[in-house]
Amino acid sequence: MNYRMIGFAIGRILLVEAALLLLPMAVALGYGESPVPYLLPAALLVLCGGLLSFKKPRQASLFARDGLAVVALAWIAVSLFGALPFYISGSIESFVDCFFETVSGFTTTGATILTEVESLNRGILFWRSFTHWVGGMGVLVFVMAILPMGGDGHGMHMLRAEMPGPAVGKLVSRMSDTAKILYGIYLVMTVIEIVLLLAGGMPLFDACIHSFGSAGTGGFSSRNLSVGAYNNPYFEIVIGIFMLLFGINFNLYYFLLVRRFRDVFRSEELWAYVLIVATAVAAITLDIVHMYESVGTSLRHAFFQVSSIITTTGYATVDFNTWPTFSKAILVALMFIGGCAGSTAGGIKVARVVILQKVSVSEMRRMLHPNAVPAIQFEGKPLNERSIRGVHLFLAVYLMVFVASCLLVSLEQLDLVTTFTAVAACINNVGPGLEIVGPMGNFSSFSPWSKLLLSFDMLVGRLEIFPMLLLFAPSIWKRRLPSRRLVD
Amino acid sequence: MNYRMIGFAIGRILLVEAALLLLPMAVALGYGESPVPYLLPAALLVLCGGLLSFKKPRQASLFARDGLAVVALAWIAVSLFGALPFYISGSIESFVDCFFETVSGFTTTGATILTEVESLNRGILFWRSFTHWVGGMGVLVFVMAILPMGGDGHGMHMLRAEMPGPAVGKLVSRMSDTAKILYGIYLVMTVIEIVLLLAGGMPLFDACIHSFGSAGTGGFSSRNLSVGAYNNPYFEIVIGIFMLLFGINFNLYYFLLVRRFRDVFRSEELWAYVLIVATAVAAITLDIVHMYESVGTSLRHAFFQVSSIITTTGYATVDFNTWPTFSKAILVALMFIGGCAGSTAGGIKVARVVILQKVSVSEMRRMLHPNAVPAIQFEGKPLNERSIRGVHLFLAVYLMVFVASCLLVSLEQLDLVTTFTAVAACINNVGPGLEIVGPMGNFSSFSPWSKLLLSFDMLVGRLEIFPMLLLFAPSIWKRRLPSRRLVD
Repeated sequence: MNYRMIGFAIGRILLVEAALLLLPMAVALGYGESPVPYLLPAALLVLCGGLLSFKKPRQASLFARDGLAVVALAWIAVSLFGALPFYISGSIESFVDCFFETVSGFTTTGATILTEVESLNRGILFWRSFTHWVGGMGVLVFVMAILPMGGDGHGMHMLRAEMPGPAVGKLVSRMSDTAKILYGIYLVMTVIEIVLLLAGGMPLFDACIHSFGSAGTGGFSSRNLSVGAYNNPYFEIVIGIFMLLFGINFNLYYFLLVRRFRDVFRSEELWAYVLIVATAVAAITLDIVHMYESVGTSLRHAFFQVSSIITTTGYATVDFNTWPTFSKAILVALMFIGGCAGSTAGGIKVARVVILQKVSVSEMRRMLHPNAVPAIQFEGKPLNERSIRGVHLFLAVYLMVFVASCLLVSLEQLDLVTTFTAVAACINNVGPGLEIVGPMGNFSSFSPWSKLLLSFDMLVGRLEIFPMLLLFAPSIWKRRLPSRRLVD
Repeated sequence: MNYRMIGFAIGRILLVEAALLLLPMAVALGYGESPVPYLLPAALLVLCGGLLSFKKPRQASLFARDGLAVVALAWIAVSLFGALPFYISGSIESFVDCFFETVSGFTTTGATILTEVESLNRGILFWRSFTHWVGGMGVLVFVMAILPMGGDGHGMHMLRAEMPGPAVGKLVSRMSDTAKILYGIYLVMTVIEIVLLLAGGMPLFDACIHSFGSAGTGGFSSRNLSVGAYNNPYFEIVIGIFMLLFGINFNLYYFLLVRRFRDVFRSEELWAYVLIVATAVAAITLDIVHMYESVGTSLRHAFFQVSSIITTTGYATVDFNTWPTFSKAILVALMFIGGCAGSTAGGIKVARVVILQKVSVSEMRRMLHPNAVPAIQFEGKPLNERSIRGVHLFLAVYLMVFVASCLLVSLEQLDLVTTFTAVAACINNVGPGLEIVGPMGNFSSFSPWSKLLLSFDMLVGRLEIFPMLLLFAPSIWKRRLPSRRLVD
């Protein structure tokens, strides 16, 4: 473990967070609120970040395990410091709750412990949603685009741990350029959403909040009733469409930019995503049509909720907790599927689901025709053994973390649906679940231990499981690997 | 597909079922009940079985896909005919219900659509539980022990599809001898349980019913309150221990017989099984201790329910539906784990869980030390790539069937816990779930479509998933494989 270099990398990230805090501070000042809750943490971040990254270590190389450690530790550190504004402003009393809310923000989960948000300071509300936006493309992509730290090698290690799913291609030769392009697309799409919401008459502040929330597929709102508070079909359709757009692999937007339309049109993951969304919307519309005044209204609510849940955003226009069981079961299944790989969405990811389905069908075919050697293709390329193993490994470890978390959270003795969907909503970075943690509920009734566990689950889900788990491996903390000693 | 040979094999199995029906008929006569509900199906079975297996086809070879087809079709056929006694005797009105109950019996699930069993004829109750016993070791192991049909090759194919889990070793050189040994152990253990229950004062009929139910890890009882009806700690302890014993890999009993004690003592799966049971019993005892008069009673109930659920039997001494959430969550987790491979239990199997855990840990270690090549050992032997793929494939397909079934059953618009645990209880061959399908509830409120789907799930679970699913592959029905034409 190259402790110095890891410290240096995290130090840089903390300095970036200090800079990010200036924005909510400006908002606070604009609304005549105290700047202290942002200034104090920013000063602390400058101090800590400066000390850690004062001098670049001579030995600057990072290995795979170092990259994993940077990612995991950076998210934890950024969340700890990011919780300070909530704590200092007195918006949230307990520090565990502040931490939960901030992890929920940065991991773009959107699960909240707040029972009421409309009375919060504007600056705090802004910071809360801004963490979604920052978390969305990943603090580290952001940092790498702005502060390239060296060769491509370790950058790639970090991005691999950071970017969801198996389909992330290398768009351009240099990592920092890739990050800049992705970041540019993200920024432009967010601005378009803000403009469209403004055009419909939403106030600028609210437009920013909800665009941050949909861009990061997070789901924090400035209103207690979420998007439903506006009771405005135009807003619902704009946000519904943008959530879906932010759930698509960003590589496809790059392909659009460079006019490689064929690659977009042929994306298997995109088609699977569209198919799942369309099927779910149709099924839920039929299931809830008796609850609303017209088919159109049912369709709109079904579309918004499907878009919100499959992209793991978590905005709501209605309390889907009151929907029939079939609709709720579909939504729970969508929570696990999640958005596309390479998007800001969480969950298992459509790409992995497609790969699992293809591999399973191919293997079952082999049972019938043992001599046939099937070549499995995904996105036009043959799937190699390593990718398949990776997906299977992901599924197995994901399930183990999920089951262990459910058992621990069940110690709260809340009902089983709350327990199950609370863990599902956190590990898949969705936000709301059902029953007590439903779209009109919140996570305030959990004990501090469960809140910490659920925060861990959010980080596990956001970082595609492994970086967080590997922090528990004793060997990651060793200075040198036995196998490396030979080449030192 | 060798249609003739498949027909021949199934014909033989139907003749065996005809013979099996003589036992409940004898019971019926002994209690002065009508023999017709057993005689009529037996005659029909002799007719159909005789026609199918009148002449052994010249071309007697069976390929892998033929073996899978025989297993799947045989279980369906045997269940269809086995449903007739319920229908003819008028014990169950609708034929779908009769089929559900019989599939539940043969698959050793123990899920029932009956709201009341104590008023049923003795013969019917006997047949209902006898299907557990027959299903337990697998109708086909039974048939192969009695009626060897040819060389070892295809016998092995069938047994592979039949016997649960990856750890089934070849005990002796000939397949039919293996089956005889396993069957002998099974019979002796059942008899010991009957004797022990008789010694405690249980009537012979009840002792047979509950021994059949625990031997097959099925769970049908002759009492509405299941084993709880006797309110007798001795019975609970005997049945609790025997359920656990029948959930152990039968190969280990053979090792005991041939004095290979070391192999038994070193079985990783056995230790994992014991560890899971002990942990679950301890955790549940602590969780329910406030509900019962003493720690001893809590321990007894916890032990019985854990034993019943992990072995996927489904007997109950108390209504665990009223237990706290933590205990219920543990029981639901145990439903999925199931017993040991090579036992009569259902579920994913402890062996697969251990393998998944080992492979995951090893792969995560590889992330930290990319140059290390880890060799994963299981039961003293290195795990090969094919076994690992097999376990991963099982998990993926199992989950797909599970999720699809949950979505379809949720159309019933019952609550989510009922929906989820009904599917879990059927696919894992447990029997009872929670809420409406809890230990004191039943499956009568489902529609015929859901009952058929859940019957399918029971068969899918019992046959380790693939034989049932492959019936839907169009290519299994082709007469010849393209690849075989070359060697014909």
